[in-house]
Amino acid sequence: MKALVYHGRGNRNWEDKQKPKIIDATDVVVRVTTTTICGTDLHILKGDLPAVTDGRILGHEGVGVIDEVGANVVSFHKGDKVLISCVTSCGRCSFCRKGMFSHCRSGGWILGNTIDGTQAEYVRIPHADTSLYPLPPESDEEAVVMLSDIFPTGLECGVLNGQVKPGDIVAIIGAGPIGLSALLTAKLYSPAEIVMVDMDDNRLEIARSFGATQVVNSSNGKAIETIMTFTNSAGVDVAIEAVGIPATFDICQSIIAPGGHIANVGVHGKPVELHLERLWSQNITLTTRLVDTITTPMLLQAVLSGRLDAKKLVSHRFDLTDIMKAYDTFANAAKERVLKVILKSTAK
Amino acid sequence: MKALVYHGRGNRNWEDKQKPKIIDATDVVVRVTTTTICGTDLHILKGDLPAVTDGRILGHEGVGVIDEVGANVVSFHKGDKVLISCVTSCGRCSFCRKGMFSHCRSGGWILGNTIDGTQAEYVRIPHADTSLYPLPPESDEEAVVMLSDIFPTGLECGVLNGQVKPGDIVAIIGAGPIGLSALLTAKLYSPAEIVMVDMDDNRLEIARSFGATQVVNSSNGKAIETIMTFTNSAGVDVAIEAVGIPATFDICQSIIAPGGHIANVGVHGKPVELHLERLWSQNITLTTRLVDTITTPMLLQAVLSGRLDAKKLVSHRFDLTDIMKAYDTFANAAKERVLKVILKSTAK
Amino acid sequence: MKALVYHGRGNRNWEDKQKPKIIDATDVVVRVTTTTICGTDLHILKGDLPAVTDGRILGHEGVGVIDEVGANVVSFHKGDKVLISCVTSCGRCSFCRKGMFSHCRSGGWILGNTIDGTQAEYVRIPHADTSLYPLPPESDEEAVVMLSDIFPTGLECGVLNGQVKPGDIVAIIGAGPIGLSALLTAKLYSPAEIVMVDMDDNRLEIARSFGATQVVNSSNGKAIETIMTFTNSAGVDVAIEAVGIPATFDICQSIIAPGGHIANVGVHGKPVELHLERLWSQNITLTTRLVDTITTPMLLQAVLSGRLDAKKLVSHRFDLTDIMKAYDTFANAAKERVLKVILKSTAK
Amino acid sequence: MKALVYHGRGNRNWEDKQKPKIIDATDVVVRVTTTTICGTDLHILKGDLPAVTDGRILGHEGVGVIDEVGANVVSFHKGDKVLISCVTSCGRCSFCRKGMFSHCRSGGWILGNTIDGTQAEYVRIPHADTSLYPLPPESDEEAVVMLSDIFPTGLECGVLNGQVKPGDIVAIIGAGPIGLSALLTAKLYSPAEIVMVDMDDNRLEIARSFGATQVVNSSNGKAIETIMTFTNSAGVDVAIEAVGIPATFDICQSIIAPGGHIANVGVHGKPVELHLERLWSQNITLTTRLVDTITTPMLLQAVLSGRLDAKKLVSHRFDLTDIMKAYDTFANAAKERVLKVILKSTAK
Repeated sequence: MKALVYHGRGNRNWEDKQKPKIIDATDVVVRVTTTTICGTDLHILKGDLPAVTDGRILGHEGVGVIDEVGANVVSFHKGDKVLISCVTSCGRCSFCRKGMFSHCRSGGWILGNTIDGTQAEYVRIPHADTSLYPLPPESDEEAVVMLSDIFPTGLECGVLNGQVKPGDIVAIIGAGPIGLSALLTAKLYSPAEIVMVDMDDNRLEIARSFGATQVVNSSNGKAIETIMTFTNSAGVDVAIEAVGIPATFDICQSIIAPGGHIANVGVHGKPVELHLERLWSQNITLTTRLVDTITTPMLLQAVLSGRLDAKKLVSHRFDLTDIMKAYDTFANAAKERVLKVILKSTAK
Repeated sequence: MKALVYHGRGNRNWEDKQKPKIIDATDVVVRVTTTTICGTDLHILKGDLPAVTDGRILGHEGVGVIDEVGANVVSFHKGDKVLISCVTSCGRCSFCRKGMFSHCRSGGWILGNTIDGTQAEYVRIPHADTSLYPLPPESDEEAVVMLSDIFPTGLECGVLNGQVKPGDIVAIIGAGPIGLSALLTAKLYSPAEIVMVDMDDNRLEIARSFGATQVVNSSNGKAIETIMTFTNSAGVDVAIEAVGIPATFDICQSIIAPGGHIANVGVHGKPVELHLERLWSQNITLTTRLVDTITTPMLLQAVLSGRLDAKKLVSHRFDLTDIMKAYDTFANAAKERVLKVILKSTAK
Repeated sequence: MKALVYHGRGNRNWEDKQKPKIIDATDVVVRVTTTTICGTDLHILKGDLPAVTDGRILGHEGVGVIDEVGANVVSFHKGDKVLISCVTSCGRCSFCRKGMFSHCRSGGWILGNTIDGTQAEYVRIPHADTSLYPLPPESDEEAVVMLSDIFPTGLECGVLNGQVKPGDIVAIIGAGPIGLSALLTAKLYSPAEIVMVDMDDNRLEIARSFGATQVVNSSNGKAIETIMTFTNSAGVDVAIEAVGIPATFDICQSIIAPGGHIANVGVHGKPVELHLERLWSQNITLTTRLVDTITTPMLLQAVLSGRLDAKKLVSHRFDLTDIMKAYDTFANAAKERVLKVILKSTAK
Repeated sequence: MKALVYHGRGNRNWEDKQKPKIIDATDVVVRVTTTTICGTDLHILKGDLPAVTDGRILGHEGVGVIDEVGANVVSFHKGDKVLISCVTSCGRCSFCRKGMFSHCRSGGWILGNTIDGTQAEYVRIPHADTSLYPLPPESDEEAVVMLSDIFPTGLECGVLNGQVKPGDIVAIIGAGPIGLSALLTAKLYSPAEIVMVDMDDNRLEIARSFGATQVVNSSNGKAIETIMTFTNSAGVDVAIEAVGIPATFDICQSIIAPGGHIANVGVHGKPVELHLERLWSQNITLTTRLVDTITTPMLLQAVLSGRLDAKKLVSHRFDLTDIMKAYDTFANAAKERVLKVILKSTAK
């Protein structure tokens, strides 16, 4: 089969690989029909995640059809349409038993990281019973694939960790796909204001059309000042970091109100400076999280019933065989005005 | 009257000051009978808290007797014995209405900070109805004065923010008075292990006698290694920072388990480096807090009924007139084996 | 002045009463400009609340202008426009300090209950600093008066106690004003379904126009069956009781899913039968609550900024002098298609 | 093999039954080495639980050794010593995924209820990977078997649902084994007072020796009066119902303070009368729960490390072959001064 393979910092290739087989009796093999590219895949290509080694098939998002079923799998059969969760969960270990699937002792985020991923014609999914979600045959794959990672991530790491509630002033730093998914899911909790910060006017315009009540272009270096003025110096109740660099984290810690919540969503490659000399007395809560995907069933039901329009994030579409070009486009997000790119496989 | 007055970085003096008067109708004036010195007072003397200006009477802890009562005070009368809270609360502003007294819009930590404090023969207490607690005449002042600040701080900023629960492994970095108060109040929630970290064997010995199940002397630079070995590389569920310097914060972020809680209690003078490049995916929660003193009524009841032995933290006793010497002793905590010093006023 | 006075079971009269005066220094007297009638007022007239005695002026909702100010009041001045909270709170007692204003030791629900209320030209408000909310002069009184009681009640007793969250199936039993306020505030948390149950098709139609996704007319005695079918026998996540009689409580306990929440809002005059022989193993939570009005500031901001259309509940308007007729209309809610009646005073 | 078999209301027999076999590949068969009798078994014998049918082997508690292992079981091997949980959990269904194992769609409380149980020489355990806990070979079976049901039940249904916290006044109605387990686990949260209510002075004496601070013999019908006097008419913060009859439930609802929690643990055979005509305004929370056993790992660690003395509840010991006599004794709990009876099997 064909797959997108990582060959060390900066190198990727669409090439032939062995079709995956069942290894453990709890595995299934899924024929991928729709996949997408995540900002984290770009981080891998920059060499930021050294656990990913040469030869790895990338990708942790996808929708597909079950092709082969391990002997111990009880919930799925060949031909079933499924959503692949970016987080693999055994359902048995102490982390899974308390709902922290992200740190499953034999799972977690492994797809396209420590085992081969979904940017391929086929992918092996371990712990299938607890890592896949059944889909109705007629479900819209472009919408549903947004639930592999980006929507649960925005909701769990951003909105739920940030404890967004009615009446809050929420600032989201970064209007890329992940910031926008935080925006769309923050609206489920009816905050009074959602302030979106980015350096790209196009993305801010999209944010506004998605429901941001204020947008701030931070390229003039005055985002903090602007937000503090807007809040009459009170600061924001929730600041969601959706970029992953020191400068955007710094905005969060500078605008947070006493008693407020900073929810980190961004994947960071370097330490940040935390101003405890000021914040020690400010009663703030700072959270980090790898998505646990515990909200996937709720989000899936919201998408299938039409209450959540997850497809809004899709900006570009490619055939899976054009994934090298899709990566080029995605890597030029600002210029190409990309949010999420859909990769559709027509192979059978 | 006499008072301990701050005269800029490194300078303090026991000198004559005007006896305080009622300014607002919600004030009372308290004749101080017992006070103590806080680690924060030493921070002020180092010049770490620039809001404190030359001429300020220090101190935010105390027990005393009401001497004069403002016209609008309803709960207290001349002659009543009272506990002074380190945090002043109006009971009316939006912060007070949600229990965040520490950020009261006309109060918070102001005593010995932005208004004159308790290390004096008399002190003016604003918002008396909501900032003092009535004491039975026979109550033990040495025990009760520990509830002005140190016990609610250990409990609220350390134990409650850290969400200590039965079965947890808790590490407390710093076995000074504040770390020991976190230790004593952590026991209210029955953690499986309390690991105490300090560089002073004397303090670690005290910690052990107070209920620490493990003690680690960090002076060899191997505290992280020792704790990770002790936890079979799992890390701790709760790490309480009770010192306020980058090195001790760093221990906390290095030993925290996935899903764990870092509760900062220390007063920091400088930023710290936060390793988000590793922690972004570790589902941790980091909290800061200026004590709200919402637990004071519960702690007071526990002390008065004999269930909590708050006096354990008292190591030295002085007459209030010897406060200059008491400061010298307190500043040499390790050598003098000091925990909390009691200052008793015999003046009438 | 004129006031609506209770004269024992079934008797009310619009009559002359002494204009109220300041009694405690923390009181204000408010000239009432807008008030309304609550279902609880009808309960009083039925004799269900024996604490209300002959001669009492009824009413616990209102907007007005400060007419006289007690010596110790700091936040309000003569001429200020204010919202009167149905719950009086001292801000100092142990209940107020933990946010349970409903059980304030010298307040709680006392207006139109144990002291004279708001259905009068003037009303005395104790603990004014912590029981009134300032209003901009131009605010819409008809919308704002809905925040005296009914909106915080629907939100706190129904939605917050019921822990409504995104994706939930919520059933609200009773589509009167209180049930409709629960419906409107439940939407703040984006449940998947809101099922409204009532015996009055007119009210169900209104519920649908307010956002109910399902409506069930229970007059055929098949509401339970209908809801269980609709939920594929799973039951509902949250059942909000908004009537106050055994029959409607019974629907709640019959449709609740394992792990679900029954939130009682209704004022009950008799005991109910609780089926613990079935529910003991169903992991349910049942709550009761007298509104604490802790959400009033948030709701007020939502109304003033136009995000919450509280005025939707207003169906009829009268001059305050016509309050006897307004009561007649309100008591015939079904026939008159009444939700909330506005009573406007034009007196100066 | 031999087993204790239910033969309809009032009838039980120790008789020959077919040794269980693996049915599903996720099953194991356990050779029972220690089991015990639960109050619920007596309820079954009274005919209170009609789901239990003639021919059923009773018992849902036990420790044993794995005898046979299904093909899909990954965590256990023949010869392993294990704790059997009273609740069977698949780990995969929506209830298990949110930690509500009690309502597992293919599990929950089924042992000795809808499938054969543990009062036998052998028992089949479905979903073994997620329904058994590994034990060290040397662990004390008498202590550990108390974690099959009674300790997690007291903790989860009583203490956690009741939200017991430091400083609380807790009343536990019923000083049988389940009430005593609530008492022992309530102490993990350091309440100020634990008031134990029962009609049996012997049990109250045991309660006192286990840490109850007050004991009340309710046989004079004055328990409510006594407790209200003791609390200065304030009532208790938490009332734990550990009997399961209307009279004891009634004590709970009569002594609960505004804002308090009633946690039902008892298995009820009849409805109760809930006084909503008084409680509607009291801000109370009433919970029911079939134990989820989510606290079993924590409790197990506490028992194995010696921090929790679970064996305290063991009052009598029998050989498993004497189980008919053990039932007679257990059914005469008051006269025989029974708490929990240990049944030990010496068969190989």
